[in-house]
Amino acid sequence: MNIRPLGDRVVIKRLEAEEKTKSGIVLTGSAKERPQEAEVVAVGPGGVIDGKEIRMEVKVGDKVLFSKYAGTEVKIDNDEFVILKQEDILAVVE
Amino acid sequence: MNIRPLGDRVVIKRLEAEEKTKSGIVLTGSAKERPQEAEVVAVGPGGVIDGKEIRMEVKVGDKVLFSKYAGTEVKIDNDEFVILKQEDILAVVE
Amino acid sequence: MNIRPLGDRVVIKRLEAEEKTKSGIVLTGSAKERPQEAEVVAVGPGGVIDGKEIRMEVKVGDKVLFSKYAGTEVKIDNDEFVILKQEDILAVVE
Amino acid sequence: MNIRPLGDRVVIKRLEAEEKTKSGIVLTGSAKERPQEAEVVAVGPGGVIDGKEIRMEVKVGDKVLFSKYAGTEVKIDNDEFVILKQEDILAVVE
Amino acid sequence: MNIRPLGDRVVIKRLEAEEKTKSGIVLTGSAKERPQEAEVVAVGPGGVIDGKEIRMEVKVGDKVLFSKYAGTEVKIDNDEFVILKQEDILAVVE
Amino acid sequence: MNIRPLGDRVVIKRLEAEEKTKSGIVLTGSAKERPQEAEVVAVGPGGVIDGKEIRMEVKVGDKVLFSKYAGTEVKIDNDEFVILKQEDILAVVE
Amino acid sequence: MNIRPLGDRVVIKRLEAEEKTKSGIVLTGSAKERPQEAEVVAVGPGGVIDGKEIRMEVKVGDKVLFSKYAGTEVKIDNDEFVILKQEDILAVVE
Repeated sequence: MNIRPLGDRVVIKRLEAEEKTKSGIVLTGSAKERPQEAEVVAVGPGGVIDGKEIRMEVKVGDKVLFSKYAGTEVKIDNDEFVILKQEDILAVVE
Repeated sequence: MNIRPLGDRVVIKRLEAEEKTKSGIVLTGSAKERPQEAEVVAVGPGGVIDGKEIRMEVKVGDKVLFSKYAGTEVKIDNDEFVILKQEDILAVVE
Repeated sequence: MNIRPLGDRVVIKRLEAEEKTKSGIVLTGSAKERPQEAEVVAVGPGGVIDGKEIRMEVKVGDKVLFSKYAGTEVKIDNDEFVILKQEDILAVVE
Repeated sequence: MNIRPLGDRVVIKRLEAEEKTKSGIVLTGSAKERPQEAEVVAVGPGGVIDGKEIRMEVKVGDKVLFSKYAGTEVKIDNDEFVILKQEDILAVVE
Repeated sequence: MNIRPLGDRVVIKRLEAEEKTKSGIVLTGSAKERPQEAEVVAVGPGGVIDGKEIRMEVKVGDKVLFSKYAGTEVKIDNDEFVILKQEDILAVVE
Repeated sequence: MNIRPLGDRVVIKRLEAEEKTKSGIVLTGSAKERPQEAEVVAVGPGGVIDGKEIRMEVKVGDKVLFSKYAGTEVKIDNDEFVILKQEDILAVVE
Repeated sequence: MNIRPLGDRVVIKRLEAEEKTKSGIVLTGSAKERPQEAEVVAVGPGGVIDGKEIRMEVKVGDKVLFSKYAGTEVKIDNDEFVILKQEDILAVVE
């Protein structure tokens, strides 16, 4: 992985529908602010962001739920990723 | 339960209309920002969120009232849950 | 009363027009942000809310004036209540 | 006076046009955010409001100028009052 | 002058076009947020305003430039004044 | 120069197109939030502005880039100036 | 390079599509808030910006991803640059 997110940003990769079924998570597909499942692929260093101390609570490999419209999409070597702030991650799926 | 909410987030499960009647709570169904009754199924760790110390005041099993449109809905093993911040919980029903 | 409000929230019950006349308070009925008279039925614990120390200044039994559109309405055992933050209470009527 | 305003709120009573002429203040009547002259009838205790120390600078009996659309109107024993925050009072007329 | 502004407010009196020409300041008359020249006639005490220490930097008699739509207009003894916060004063003309 | 800006404000004078070409800066003319080149003609004292310590980083004579729609225009002795806050200055051109 | 950005601002130069392909980054071209790849050409000093200590985390020569609509475009000697705040840089590409 050759992206190093700044500050409290996290890079995640959406999990396909098949993977979701395996882990038992099924996300209804119609609502507008619906979260989605993804895997964390890179984590920023945290630290003092906008005057506040932010400790990163997710790590590479975590499965997370996030809001569908949070963050910004990027494509690297034909894979799509999302860069978002940690506060837009709702929960870790274990 | 296999969802671990981050920060001051709480995972709740809506109570059905029948249960509401049993506990004596009847919620009028038409108003837009109407709260709803739910049971807490997972609680984030709290701590310093957005530069402020947040202590979690609800615990798993609490019956709570929350605003209908707060938070984000997720579906796990065909059950629907809502992930919301603790500040969107109005009251605990005892 | 079986609702325990969280943080700086207060549960109030609107006073009927007859009671208002008795206490000498008459509220004109047309303006949009018009306050209303109510009785406090439950008070949250206060404390540090959103990073600020909030001391609760109203107590159960207080007659208060509040903005008509503040807070959220709930119905319990066929009684209607409003859950609102203390800062949306304008004054105590004595 | 049987209203005790909370926090940094102040209860004022509008002065009639005649009184205004006597004190030499004439307010033009057309502009939208035009201030108005009123007399202070009750003053909240001040203190820490929304995390900030507020010292009350007006006292009962002060003539004040305030923005026409600030605060909330209430009617008590057929008198109309306005409940507003002290920061919406522009000046004291002496 | 019988107006005592509260907090960090300042009372100013607009300078007529003739006076402006004398001091060498000509303000173009068409733009919407165009500043105007005025003379300071009363200055609030400053102090802690909204949780922040404000030191008053203008004094009675100062010629100042301010934004045309800042503040509130009042009329006293047939003179028109503007009450505005010191932060809406752009500059002192010397 | 007879304008003394307050706080963290700066008075600048737009550079003409010819001057821009000399310094090698060419600004495309169509975009809406396009910056412009100007020369600093007066600098406020800085200090504690809105509760925050501001140190002035530009000085009289600096060539600066600023956002076209920031600040307020004034005309003095037929010269046009812009009064803006230092934070609306993007960069110094050297 | 003759631009010295103020505060926490950064001057970047967009990388052409060819360069993007070389580094393996391909950005899809249709979405509205799509990030873009660029090279850092000048970095402000950081320090206390708007009351908060900002440490600059990017350096001249870094390849970065940024939001397409962040910042302001300037043209110098026929090259186009973007001046933006460091917080609008999403990630460093390594």
